[in-house]
Amino acid sequence: MIILGIDPGTIRVGYGLIRSVGNKLTHIANGAICANKKEPVYKRLGFIASELQKIIQQHQPSIAAIEEPFVGKNIQTTIRISEGRGAAITMAAINNLDVISFSPATIKKAVTGKGSAHKSQVQAMVKILMNLHAIPQPDDAADALAVAIACAHLKNINLP
Amino acid sequence: MIILGIDPGTIRVGYGLIRSVGNKLTHIANGAICANKKEPVYKRLGFIASELQKIIQQHQPSIAAIEEPFVGKNIQTTIRISEGRGAAITMAAINNLDVISFSPATIKKAVTGKGSAHKSQVQAMVKILMNLHAIPQPDDAADALAVAIACAHLKNINLP
Repeated sequence: MIILGIDPGTIRVGYGLIRSVGNKLTHIANGAICANKKEPVYKRLGFIASELQKIIQQHQPSIAAIEEPFVGKNIQTTIRISEGRGAAITMAAINNLDVISFSPATIKKAVTGKGSAHKSQVQAMVKILMNLHAIPQPDDAADALAVAIACAHLKNINLP
Repeated sequence: MIILGIDPGTIRVGYGLIRSVGNKLTHIANGAICANKKEPVYKRLGFIASELQKIIQQHQPSIAAIEEPFVGKNIQTTIRISEGRGAAITMAAINNLDVISFSPATIKKAVTGKGSAHKSQVQAMVKILMNLHAIPQPDDAADALAVAIACAHLKNINLP
């Protein structure tokens, strides 16, 4: 089974693709879709959606795993992040992927064993678990792989 | 120019299509996309996105007008509404529509002349301006026509 991890946004969207067979995880690809931040939000969402469409068509994942929104103090930021999540979920859903969301703490716990792990610990574990030479860059790509790994570890419990 | 007004959501999405030529507005169609609320959010967003795609292909609007999110007390509701907005904006953008957002007060003022108008006053004006025999049902359809009318009234000032 191929899992597409997505770290959503409206400027930069991380993606990470892994293959999960039994207990074995294999890295397929990772990267970030970078929209032009000078463009209006709707143009960025359209660009991000088109790029996600290409990634889904190329790799044919069956599940998309997406981080739940972090509810910060700035409501406008939360609204914007949620719009980005809506765009990512929509592209996965219209391509018939199942979509599963995980809280940041759940992802940290599934990847490092600790729900309170620091971001750098999560990234270090992503590098080890994916057998990579370096931590994926930008951070969004590593974060997307982390949510895909969490999905693989938890899928037997949580799958829709 | 054909304007698609959208009242976004993750269960029921209102849509209203109008033709704007000079100062003349003509009603084309209105209705609501109703997702099955027993389905998970991602399945509903996928369904809503597919239906919006059909409406856009059928009527070929050049602009989508969408209400800005109302920031309520319940952050989870705001997140969900924003995800629905993200889905609607994405479908408009990938179909090359321009997307323009209006605050609830701007819509009320553009339709009734009063930013503090009651919902029922807005709906009554929608019926009159669109030359309809009754207020469109459900409310989401009337609200979507209202945002399309607001867009037509304001487009010379606000278009991207």
